[in-house]
Amino acid sequence: MKRLHKGFDITSYLPEGFEKSISNVIIEAPVDISINAKHWLTLMCTPSHLDELAIGFLYNEGIIKTIDEIRLAEVCHNGRNIDIWLNHNVDLPDMWQRTSGCMGGATSVKIKDVAKSKIIATILHPKKILWLTDLLLKSQSLYAMSGGVHSSALSDGENILVIMEDIGRHNTLDKIAGRCLMEIGFPTPGILITTGRISSEMLQKAAHIGASIIISRTAPSSLSIDYARYMGICLIGYARKDRFKIYSHAEYVEQSK
Amino acid sequence: MKRLHKGFDITSYLPEGFEKSISNVIIEAPVDISINAKHWLTLMCTPSHLDELAIGFLYNEGIIKTIDEIRLAEVCHNGRNIDIWLNHNVDLPDMWQRTSGCMGGATSVKIKDVAKSKIIATILHPKKILWLTDLLLKSQSLYAMSGGVHSSALSDGENILVIMEDIGRHNTLDKIAGRCLMEIGFPTPGILITTGRISSEMLQKAAHIGASIIISRTAPSSLSIDYARYMGICLIGYARKDRFKIYSHAEYVEQSK
Repeated sequence: MKRLHKGFDITSYLPEGFEKSISNVIIEAPVDISINAKHWLTLMCTPSHLDELAIGFLYNEGIIKTIDEIRLAEVCHNGRNIDIWLNHNVDLPDMWQRTSGCMGGATSVKIKDVAKSKIIATILHPKKILWLTDLLLKSQSLYAMSGGVHSSALSDGENILVIMEDIGRHNTLDKIAGRCLMEIGFPTPGILITTGRISSEMLQKAAHIGASIIISRTAPSSLSIDYARYMGICLIGYARKDRFKIYSHAEYVEQSK
Repeated sequence: MKRLHKGFDITSYLPEGFEKSISNVIIEAPVDISINAKHWLTLMCTPSHLDELAIGFLYNEGIIKTIDEIRLAEVCHNGRNIDIWLNHNVDLPDMWQRTSGCMGGATSVKIKDVAKSKIIATILHPKKILWLTDLLLKSQSLYAMSGGVHSSALSDGENILVIMEDIGRHNTLDKIAGRCLMEIGFPTPGILITTGRISSEMLQKAAHIGASIIISRTAPSSLSIDYARYMGICLIGYARKDRFKIYSHAEYVEQSK
């Protein structure tokens, strides 16, 4: 297992003066993805679950639709290269959109390519929403050790099925998509809980995973709300302890006493 | 002036029950950049200071070195397109690195291309560091109205010279670089204060701006610390109220009583 955090000698300034110590910091590393022996791009990420990351990224970017298209996925020994062989040729996009968080495809087009029918409406009790948020925070193993890391989890409304951590919030959703494709399938309903802000690209990736409810600890952007309303996704922000805000499709949240 | 936040009807869940209200949300919008009449890429951003954003992005990506290379920069009436005309031809990079926050050039190569000599060491008193952090937070006009937005400021150690807000933390540094190029020049020393996490790309952009001290409210990544140590930049994280952590070049912080 590669190390995902690293100790650095630091100096702290505190009200009582300066203090030297060792601080754990989350690892950020470049990881190359090659498709059919051709270098495609380099992801900056926390180097865990690299096969999930690469496969989920391909899925979320619309390059593959099922795991059967993957002939071989191999993480090289140095942990800095993932070789993916597909059982078909592929035209990789060469024009990217630089999003507010991370580059992605042409989001405004792609969002409408995600079949709306993927999104299966569900109804969740407010207490369940707060319980899932709490569970995500309690399950953050890397965050507890280093801070500076995002985590996201996928639930079927009952349990948390998978949780992923990464320095990049988008990477957490790619790693989750990869795990779904490779092992557990996509749950219905799909409920996504994340510590990250919801930009249009986060919304797009969550829609690809089939999430009908997205719960964030922090803020959504205007575009993510527009997309969520269009897609039939319930978008919840600022989920903290005993409260949250519903930005779209509030009818997915049980409002009876 | 384009609107930078927008009211959405939302439903809040609170301990005392559900409540309907209007919530201000930060605008995220696609903005196309064309160079010499050729579409280059689309930035997802908060659409303010678009000429600064485009010009600063070109500078931080190493496409231009001075403002004299810009023949014309024109923001189209719809506010969704920026036409840049350079007074020379240019080969735009077609291979991007997808970083943990946002795509950029091949960071690990480019960081060494930034002339180390740009970084002029300086010494700052801890109280000044906390004062600048406090000033940044107090100056956030968009954050006060909508939340969900990052802000960054550039100081010469005495005053804050420019402050920029955007949904994307990288965009705030591009907007600052643009303002420096277009109007105020790059201060020496340059001190950058930001609400955003410091990934390798944030470090790279800050180095391009000539920042010798970078102060973040939150965490740095392992790679940003490695680069800061190599570049001779003092990297400070978790600057809050009465304390902070120094991850590199602690000698830039005055430690005498």
